[in-house]
Formats: sequence, structure tokens, C-alpha cells
Amino acid sequence: MLKDICEKAVKAKYVMQALDTDTKNEALRACAKALRENSPALMVANAIDLENAVKKGMSSALIDRLKLTESRIDGMSEGLEQVAALPDPVGIVLDSWKTENGLEIEKVSVPLGVTGIIYESRPNVTADAFALTFKCGNPVILKGGSDAINSNKAVTDVIRKTLKDMGITEDAIALIESTDRETTKEFMKMKQYVDVLIPRGSAGLIASVVENSRIPVIETGAGNCHIYLDAAADKEKAVPIVINAKTQRLGVCNACESLVVHKDALESVFGPVADALKEASVEIRGDEEAQKVRDFIKPANEEDFYTEYLDRIISVKTVSSVEEAIEHINRCSTHHSEAVITEDAAAAEAFLNGIDSACVYYNASTRFTDGFEFGFGAEIGISTQKLHARGPMGLRELTSYKYRIRGNGQVRK
Amino acid sequence: MLKDICEKAVKAKYVMQALDTDTKNEALRACAKALRENSPALMVANAIDLENAVKKGMSSALIDRLKLTESRIDGMSEGLEQVAALPDPVGIVLDSWKTENGLEIEKVSVPLGVTGIIYESRPNVTADAFALTFKCGNPVILKGGSDAINSNKAVTDVIRKTLKDMGITEDAIALIESTDRETTKEFMKMKQYVDVLIPRGSAGLIASVVENSRIPVIETGAGNCHIYLDAAADKEKAVPIVINAKTQRLGVCNACESLVVHKDALESVFGPVADALKEASVEIRGDEEAQKVRDFIKPANEEDFYTEYLDRIISVKTVSSVEEAIEHINRCSTHHSEAVITEDAAAAEAFLNGIDSACVYYNASTRFTDGFEFGFGAEIGISTQKLHARGPMGLRELTSYKYRIRGNGQVRK
Repeated sequence: MLKDICEKAVKAKYVMQALDTDTKNEALRACAKALRENSPALMVANAIDLENAVKKGMSSALIDRLKLTESRIDGMSEGLEQVAALPDPVGIVLDSWKTENGLEIEKVSVPLGVTGIIYESRPNVTADAFALTFKCGNPVILKGGSDAINSNKAVTDVIRKTLKDMGITEDAIALIESTDRETTKEFMKMKQYVDVLIPRGSAGLIASVVENSRIPVIETGAGNCHIYLDAAADKEKAVPIVINAKTQRLGVCNACESLVVHKDALESVFGPVADALKEASVEIRGDEEAQKVRDFIKPANEEDFYTEYLDRIISVKTVSSVEEAIEHINRCSTHHSEAVITEDAAAAEAFLNGIDSACVYYNASTRFTDGFEFGFGAEIGISTQKLHARGPMGLRELTSYKYRIRGNGQVRK
Repeated sequence: MLKDICEKAVKAKYVMQALDTDTKNEALRACAKALRENSPALMVANAIDLENAVKKGMSSALIDRLKLTESRIDGMSEGLEQVAALPDPVGIVLDSWKTENGLEIEKVSVPLGVTGIIYESRPNVTADAFALTFKCGNPVILKGGSDAINSNKAVTDVIRKTLKDMGITEDAIALIESTDRETTKEFMKMKQYVDVLIPRGSAGLIASVVENSRIPVIETGAGNCHIYLDAAADKEKAVPIVINAKTQRLGVCNACESLVVHKDALESVFGPVADALKEASVEIRGDEEAQKVRDFIKPANEEDFYTEYLDRIISVKTVSSVEEAIEHINRCSTHHSEAVITEDAAAAEAFLNGIDSACVYYNASTRFTDGFEFGFGAEIGISTQKLHARGPMGLRELTSYKYRIRGNGQVRK
């Protein structure tokens, strides 16, 4: 069953790599239309998932994430149409040169291949992931959470039928319907068929995929993001940036989880920042020096500096120099996004160069680490590893390349 | 011990990412000089490995690979000097743009990070791997084979001492001296410290690393390479290209292992190719139609078409069209290098686009898949996966990137 899905995806890979841009865009728009037209059926399927969730005693926040409404289905369709409007990342000549013996070498972008996506409850990921992988010529094999199985199946069926009716392979998308853990583990061993695996979800899900997969994985999502308030920080910038990065959305990977404060900025900059955080009901956990600044600051332990709270809590570490700040952040960070607030250009450059993270900001909020904010027009996730892609992953990051070499009989000496 | 090596490499990573190009080049040249100066000591250490190899009854071919001579040590030093002369791949602004809200985004190349290399007997890999990773600002942790342990240790010690004397961190290179399998397995789990693992060696070694590693792996080396003799192939090109690709060097990954022949080219092109292969003492294993062409052609079974012989043997498959050739190759290949021999430009383009391999050739030998032949000036291996790097890997493929974003107080709406 799983093998069958994988074998069909490999066949689909060769069909899809030959699709032209217009055909792909037309198919994406047709799928968008079909999802809108089938929204009553999608909501019926979703209702079963919602009923099961209520029976299981799922929290109302999670039930809300699971729910499909007319407007959310419209949102999925709009997502597909937006991806159709983006430039095709495949078939671009990235580089070309001629060797001394006359070989003409061309480096050209190609689809990444069969893409596996393992994700949790939100059913809109099903349509999103399809849109991005399809546009890049990659068949996608989806393994969603058991909570959303009926919704995911309904969305997948609509897309498969649309592609089939258009004479394009329906195997451009497949859903693994079995929801037991053994199947997931088995899927992660399908290296022979699957070129890349992208987990989307909790830190636990991602760790499990890294542990069990034999397929190359792109890790996404863990964000213990820092903001460094330098000795030369301007509090007029520091206060709104920290409040934005910490509180604009709590549960996201680019939210700020820790402040690093130069000792000379403790009173002048961190003081007003702490007042604003308290105003926003954020609990502050600081080291000894930070605690002296305001009496409402609680003590932090070493573990706090490694914690991605995803909650109304922030840690504070005091340092004596930008070098010490860089050292602390490189040690504690998940290497996602960090920012420096300063009016000292030399300190800013030291920070921009010294920090080993995907995105390093100078006087701006860490919340901008996002494919849409970067102008990629789409996002499959934010990579926190260094291999293949780093930071926001758009369409280009779902491609590989190959070399086409044209000769006239050359042999190696 | 292993943890200690890994922790030191992480510290070295932050020192090395800040080294300027001149310092790195000077260090590489100093290491080259030191290896030459210490060649007597290196040969003494190597003699112990050679003695152990003889005791173990190692084949003379393997003993020859293991042997260090004055001229081979000079070759290692020249390798270091050549890498010093190459452009620095780190710190290059790969892309830059300004967003609507005024953020200036810069995508800049950075070192890949701590690089683990697991390899087999040849001690020159020790110096080669160091040169390439060092130039890119990456600390390298080497795990060589037990057969070359004394030679590897001697080479590593010379380099570490040189770096230390120059005031650069000696932990830019470390050798895991324990040669038991458990240590290797433990090393492959050091994901917290090591950013990428590159196995270099036999198919068995690579498979074991893929199976056991939790660190992202770049797979290299397996090459079941095909040459397709099209209906419109010119035999004046086909004969020398096939002979070159098959026989110029037998044991390499870019050697040709299989011919795919259009039925209309069986007599006119494959016939003379078969004669030339026989002349070169290559055993030909063909399908039924191929066997009819010459009486010295032996029967091939299905397994032959999946086999990388690395020997004086070649398989032959007959097809009826370029499409069938593409389908056969995509199914049986390791996706390393394939070639089409034809005078029909349309067939050539179909092949160049349809074949899903790292390097696809049109009227040229597969033997050109090589970092030096491509003009990269260096090579750490040939990637057969699609993630991160594909085909010959030079210095650029040992880098990642990060985003530097400069603002003036921007927060996300």
C-alpha cells in the first residue's frame, strides 16, 4: 500500500518534470476552483473530524485550528491561485560556461523530486503543501495527523480528481491514509522512492522525524530567537521592536524568546522595555543583574536561556560586550532569527557577521523571518539547518539542479 | 573524548568564520610547507601502517593505495597550495533586495559549519579534506580507516601544530583516533555539534552512514552510469567515447557501466563499439537483441542493469526509442552521469531534459564528471542526492548562507 503510493509518486515525478509552466498554473487554478465548488462536501468531511475531536476532549483552541469554514476553504483556494501567479522556479539556467576542451556546461534548476511532508492537525496545510510542491514539479506524499484525516482525504480527493480530469497525473498528490505510527516510521525509511522529507509541526514531531528518517530531512521551525540591546541601543526603537517580536503572535517560531542586554543599557533601555513587557502581561525571567532593574523581574535559571516558550514569558541575560552577546546567543540559540538594537554601526556589523543564525536583524523585529515578508510569495517552512536551504523556504528552495553538458566527441585524457 | 573533540570543533567554528581570506591562504601554504618538511616522519608513521597491512594479508593494490612516498607527500602539499590559490567562497553577497517597508535584505555565503568526513584507506584524503573544509571556514572532524590510522594521525599532527604555531585554532582539524565501529556509530549521532557528514569510500561505507547517521549526510560516489547510442549516433564518436568512459579508469564512479542501444543502431554503431570493447578485454553482457550482434556477447540478467561493476564488464540494453531509453535509465541509474551519442538534436534535447541525473552529456564521455574537469579547482566528492549539492562538489558546495537584514526600527504589522 505504502510501496504502491511511493512507486506511483516516482512515476509521477517523470511526468511532472516535463510539464510546462502554463499547464502547471492552469492545474493549480482548476484545483482552486474545484475546492471552492466542493466546499460543502469538504465541510461534511471536516464535521466528522470535529465530532471525533470533541469526543476525544480536544481543547477548543485545537478544535478551532482543525475547523474548515467557507472562508477558510476560500483561503486555501486563494493560496493555490497565488502560487499559480508566481514565477516558475524550474528550468532556469543558473550558470553556464565553456571548458577549455570545448564542453558547454549548463547548470539548470530542476524539481527536487518526490517530497514527503509529515504534518499535524491543520487541514489547510494539505492544499498549501500541494500548491508549492506541484508548482516546482514535485509529487507530494502527505502524512497528516489522525485528527484531520477525513478533512485531508476530502481535500486530496478533490485535487486528485481535478488533475485526473485534466489528463495530468493524479499521483502528483497522495495521502497516506493509515494513521498509525508504524506506517509513519515505515514511510520515513522509503529512501529508495522519496527524495526529501519536510516535517511541519511541533518540536516533538520534528525530533521524531530526524531520529527515524533515512530520507534526507529539512528541519524547520524551532525558534529560540534573541534580541540584543546594545550599549548604544535607542530605546525608541528597542521598546516597539521587543514588544512586536515578543507579543504580536506568541506561538510562532520567529517570536522573541530571550533578551540579551549590555550592562550599560540595563537602566536606560532595558528598564523601559521591561515596563512595556509588564504592561503586555509578559513574565520576565532575568539573571541577577537584570533582576535589580525592576522588582517584578523573576529569577531565570540556565534552562530558561535554552527555552522556546511560545508563551507570554521572556528571559533576560546581561553581558559586558557585543562579543559576549554573540557568544551567548550562538551557544543558546536554535539559529533561527536574532536581532541587535543599536545606533553603533560597528557593533551592528560585528553582530551581523558573528551570529550564526539563518536571519540576523539590525534594528528590526525578528517577526520578519517569513517567506511572504521576504517577498518569496510563498513559504513551505523556515529551515534551521545549514544544508540545502536556510531561513524562509519558498519555491526556489523546493528545487535542485542538474548539469547539461554539450560536446562534440570529447573524451577524457 | 568524542564529545570533547566535537565541543572543540564548535568553538573552532566561531573562530574560523571570522578568518579573512589572506590568513586562511597563508595557513594552507604553511601547512603544505610543514608536510614537506616532515615527510621523513610521515613516512615513518606510514611504515607502521604498511607493516600492519602486510601482516593482515592486505592485497598489494590496497597496500599501494595506503603507501606514502616523498612524491605523494609532495602531491598532498601541492593540493593544499592549489586550494590556497582558489577564490574564497565565503562572504559573497549572493543576492540582495529592499522590501516595501524598507528592510535591506542581503543573502551572504557562510561556512557550512562543523564537517564530519568518514573515509577509508588513502591517507592523502586527510590533507585534501582539511584543505577544502578549512578554505571554507569549516572545522573538520575526520574518521579515517583503521588501516591508515598512524599515517592519518601523523598528517593531522603536522597540520595542528602548524595552525597552533600561527595562532589559529588547532581544532580546525581533528582526527578520531579510536577505530572501533561503536565510536563511528556514536560519532554519527553527534547532531548537536556536527552540521554535515560526508562519507567517502565504498558503497557499503556510504550505506552504513546513511543508515546510522542523525547528522545530515551528503551522499557521494555511487555511479551506475549509462551511455545511450541513439538511432542517429555517429560511430566515429560512439567508439572512442564508450572506450574512454568504460576503460580509461575502471574503478571510478564516473565510468560507464551500461550501454543502452536503439535497435536501429545495433548493427551500425553497437557492432563496432562491441568490437572495440572486446579488443579492450571488456566482457559484454547483453539482452537478447544485443547478443545477436556479435557471438562473443554473453547474456545479461535483470540484476546486471542495476550493477556498478567497477570492472572490465559492461551491460547492454536494447530499446525502441529515446523515450524508452530515458525510462530505462531513470529506473536503473544511480543518477550520477549519463550520456547520449547522437547527431539528432531533438533526441539529444529530449535526453538532456528527461534524464534525472546530476550530469547529462551529449556527445561526450561520462568521465568528465569531476570537480577539476568542471573547473571548480577542487573536489570533495560527487553528490548523487538532490538536496544541497548535486554532481561535483567544490568549495562553493561546502558553504551555506545566511540573511543579514538592516532596518531602522521596523516592526511587523
